[in-house]
Amino acid sequence: MELLKHRILQDGRCYPGGILKVDSFINHQMDPMLMYKIAEEFINRFKGTHINKIVTIEASGIAPAIMVGYVMQLPVVFVKKKKPKTMENMLSTVVHSFTKDRDYTVCISNNFLTADDHILFIDDFLAYGNAALGMLDLAKQSGCTVAGMGFIIEKAFQDGGNTLREQGIHVESLAIIDNLDNCEIVIR
Amino acid sequence: MELLKHRILQDGRCYPGGILKVDSFINHQMDPMLMYKIAEEFINRFKGTHINKIVTIEASGIAPAIMVGYVMQLPVVFVKKKKPKTMENMLSTVVHSFTKDRDYTVCISNNFLTADDHILFIDDFLAYGNAALGMLDLAKQSGCTVAGMGFIIEKAFQDGGNTLREQGIHVESLAIIDNLDNCEIVIR
Repeated sequence: MELLKHRILQDGRCYPGGILKVDSFINHQMDPMLMYKIAEEFINRFKGTHINKIVTIEASGIAPAIMVGYVMQLPVVFVKKKKPKTMENMLSTVVHSFTKDRDYTVCISNNFLTADDHILFIDDFLAYGNAALGMLDLAKQSGCTVAGMGFIIEKAFQDGGNTLREQGIHVESLAIIDNLDNCEIVIR
Repeated sequence: MELLKHRILQDGRCYPGGILKVDSFINHQMDPMLMYKIAEEFINRFKGTHINKIVTIEASGIAPAIMVGYVMQLPVVFVKKKKPKTMENMLSTVVHSFTKDRDYTVCISNNFLTADDHILFIDDFLAYGNAALGMLDLAKQSGCTVAGMGFIIEKAFQDGGNTLREQGIHVESLAIIDNLDNCEIVIR
């Protein structure tokens, strides 16, 4: 997606340790017009796939997911990082965050993820793929079908993309970063 | 907003202790088409107000905020509940959550909230108003102008609405719940 690649090269910033900061337009300040274009591109990439629900994980996945849901006229569910007091029937799994170096439990109500669902999972980043693997575990517990997974940015030098594709998941990433060596952004 | 009131009465559920659960269409599973209508209503309520940026707090505020930003063609920033490693110039404040009975620190980069900004703050719920008061503190630190605060649902029997309006804030709530006594939803 040329518009996105251009924006990453223009406004993204690179930090030692393979960190790409896109907080001026994707995951802190957000550009809603770009998010809309991103949603259109995801829909294009998954054209012809049977999808009845969009699922994401809080917080940075919510903006692109709600846009995809809006354009496709489908409900959107976000996986929560904390269990609400009032959630009764819950599926949960543990996700390891490399960025924050800790494990956390994520959950989703099984009222909103069932064996009848064909979900498209949307998130901002695919790095080591831990959030996505957590999603696959929740999906397995619910019996739902994972029709696809779409990421705004994939870091190809970390391993998440390979892991998911080897499991036969249809993965689409709108910008693939080949490396961030010497703090230079190299986009495929 | 009649559409919203109708939906709350139809799909909202009431629990002892003044809890209103709207997790099938607002804050866990989300209805993007309703979010779009909500955004249009907010824009209508703040017509004629000078606004250059939408601000919200993760996670449930993001969906309505990004829709408002999309329709108004304005950037959206979400206040974070955890400080990212790579955030350098940060404003922070402590917010007390009555629902979760704990204090937490929220933060926003001062690159994205400055004295030049005229912000519209959007969130899903106004109850005791603690998140909104945290926002006012961040706004004060940055020197920005709070042009208004919009909430999808206000619980009028808790005190946030009064507190904010007494400070001269322009508050708009799209559905005002007068009480939830005996687990019955009474909407103004």
